[in-house]
Amino acid sequence: MTNSSGQTRNPVYLGLDIGGSFVKYGVVNSDGTVLFSSRTPTLLDGGPQRLIDTLHRVILEMAEHSVSRGFRPQAIGIGSPGTINPCSGKITGESPNLPGWVNVELRTPFAEFGLPIAVDNDANCSAYAEYTYGAASGSRHALVLTLGTGIGSGIIIDGRLFHGAHYTGAELGHISINSRGPSCGCGNRGCLELYASAGAILRRAARLADFYPHSALAHIDFSAREDSSLAGVFSAARDGDPAAVELLETVADDLAVGLASIINAFDPEVLVVGGGAADAAPEFIADVFRRTKRLTFKNSAPKTKLVPAKLGNRAGFIGAAALGRNATEHP
Amino acid sequence: MTNSSGQTRNPVYLGLDIGGSFVKYGVVNSDGTVLFSSRTPTLLDGGPQRLIDTLHRVILEMAEHSVSRGFRPQAIGIGSPGTINPCSGKITGESPNLPGWVNVELRTPFAEFGLPIAVDNDANCSAYAEYTYGAASGSRHALVLTLGTGIGSGIIIDGRLFHGAHYTGAELGHISINSRGPSCGCGNRGCLELYASAGAILRRAARLADFYPHSALAHIDFSAREDSSLAGVFSAARDGDPAAVELLETVADDLAVGLASIINAFDPEVLVVGGGAADAAPEFIADVFRRTKRLTFKNSAPKTKLVPAKLGNRAGFIGAAALGRNATEHP
Repeated sequence: MTNSSGQTRNPVYLGLDIGGSFVKYGVVNSDGTVLFSSRTPTLLDGGPQRLIDTLHRVILEMAEHSVSRGFRPQAIGIGSPGTINPCSGKITGESPNLPGWVNVELRTPFAEFGLPIAVDNDANCSAYAEYTYGAASGSRHALVLTLGTGIGSGIIIDGRLFHGAHYTGAELGHISINSRGPSCGCGNRGCLELYASAGAILRRAARLADFYPHSALAHIDFSAREDSSLAGVFSAARDGDPAAVELLETVADDLAVGLASIINAFDPEVLVVGGGAADAAPEFIADVFRRTKRLTFKNSAPKTKLVPAKLGNRAGFIGAAALGRNATEHP
Repeated sequence: MTNSSGQTRNPVYLGLDIGGSFVKYGVVNSDGTVLFSSRTPTLLDGGPQRLIDTLHRVILEMAEHSVSRGFRPQAIGIGSPGTINPCSGKITGESPNLPGWVNVELRTPFAEFGLPIAVDNDANCSAYAEYTYGAASGSRHALVLTLGTGIGSGIIIDGRLFHGAHYTGAELGHISINSRGPSCGCGNRGCLELYASAGAILRRAARLADFYPHSALAHIDFSAREDSSLAGVFSAARDGDPAAVELLETVADDLAVGLASIINAFDPEVLVVGGGAADAAPEFIADVFRRTKRLTFKNSAPKTKLVPAKLGNRAGFIGAAALGRNATEHP
C-alpha cells in the first residue's frame, strides 16, 4: 500500500525483546506508539530451536494483527541477551541469564517474512528506545543504565549505538567501585552491579533482615518476584525503617560514585537511569542524581542532564522496533 | 612547491604540546618521523598573551627551520591542557596544571601563517599519536592512558578522537576504584589517579619511607624531579626492597582493576599504557597487563590487546602534528 510519493501508508515495525523469563513483543508505529503488545514465556528446553520457533510464532502473530488492521509491517527488530554482532545478526557470546542461547543466527530463520531484520543486545535496544522516543530524545550523546537483576547499559554516541570493537562494549555494570571488593562473575572485583542493581539491593536487604529481626525488612518475602520484594524495601524506607533507610543511602551513594565515574569517562549529553529499582522509587533516583551532581566535574556536572527512564519495561521491544525502522532507512 | 599531480613535495606538519613546565614542539613528516624538535619553558606570568607569544615564536622557528631545508609546512597542530573545543579552537575549561590558561582562542592568533590549525586536549593528542604512528597503529578503536602526575587519557572510536558531548570526555583517571576512598580534586571519590598515577606512586612511596626508615625508599629524594624519584622507587623494587615490592604490587592491582573497568566500558581493540611510570619500568606494566587479563570478561579479554606506549613524551606534539595533517585532508 504505497501512496503517490512512494511512501508506504500506515507503516509499523515489529519489536521483540528476549528476556530470561519472557519474550516481550509489540507492534510500534513511526512515532514510537505501541499499537499492540504481549508476552510469552522464554522456553529453551530442547535447545535454541525451541526459542526460534517461539519467535517465529510471535512475529507471525504481530504481522497478522497488523495487516488485519490496515498496517504494513516494514521491518523486524530483535533484542537478545548476550554478545550480538549486529552486522551478521549472530549471538556470539552467552549471557548468564539465558544459558545455551549462543551461536544462534537471528536473521536467517525469519528471512521468509521478506522484511529487513535488525538484531542487537537487549540493553542496547532499551537504550535506543529511550534515545529515540523516551527520556533522551532530542539528544545526540546518551547513556542509559537499567537497574534490574544486574545493571544493563547502552551508549549512543553521535546518534549511533556504540558497540565496542568486539560488540561487548558498554558493560557499565562491570565498572568496579571497589578494587578490594568481592569477585564478580565477569572476572573483575567490586563491580557496580554487585552494589547497586535491584538484585544487589535485595541481597543487601535480605542480609540486613537476618541481622535486624525487628526491622520492617524482616517481613519481606525475598523469594517473591524481584519487583514485589523491591517494592517492600522502598516502602520500608518510606516508613522510616532505620535499616532500610541506611541501606538505600549506602546504595544511593555507591550508585552516585559509579554514575560520576561514567560521566567522567563518557561526558554524555543525557544520562538516563531506569529499570525496576528506578520505576519503583522515583525519590530514590532523585536522591542518587543529587549525590551524583555533587561528585562530578565542575565543568560537566551542570551540563550532563540526569533523567529517569520513561518507557519502563517496554523499552526493549520499542527500541528493537526502532532499530528495525533504521534498517529500512539505511539498509 | 607542487608536483604535476597537485601534491605538495616534502610536506611537513608543525606540532606543539603545551605542558605545565615546557612547551615541547617538533616538525613531523607524513610518516610520523620527527625531523626537528625542541622545547621552551611555559611562561604564563602576565597572562595568556605571554604564552601566545611563546607559541608564535616557536611556530616561526619551526617554519623557518622547515623551509630552509626544503620542507613545506602544511598545517599546525596544538595540544593544550584543559577542556578544548576542537571546532572553535578555544580553551573552555581550565586545567589545574596551568592556572589562568582558559578562555583563550588558539586559532586566530596564528592565522597570519595561512595554515590550517588543529587544536585539541594534550592527552587526546598523545593518544592520537599512538593511534596514528605508535603502539595502536592499524587499529580503529584505541584507548591510551598516560601515567604521569595525573592520569591522562584519549579515546579513538572508529578512527576518530572521542570528545564527549561537552569536550570533557575520556577523563579515565577520574573513574573511581573506591567509592569510600578519599575526595579527589575533580569532586569524585577514590579516583584511579589517586592510586595509580606516577604522582600517586610517589606519594604512597614517600608515606612508606616515613614508616620504614630502613627501606630503600627512605633514601629517595622525593623533592627531586618526578621521573628521577620514580626511577628510585622502581629500582628499590628491583633490588627486592620489601616495602617497594609491596607498594608496586598494590598499585599494579589497583591499576589492573581500573583497566579492567575501562575495557568493560569501552571494549577497545587496543589499550595502550604510557607515561613516566610506564617508560621507567616495562616489567611493572607487564605485571599490570597480566593482572588485567585475569580480571576481564572471558569474551573480550583475549581480544583487547594490551600494549605499552611507543612514542614516549614526544607523543603530544607528534599527535598534534597528525591532527594538523588531518585538518588539511578534511578541512
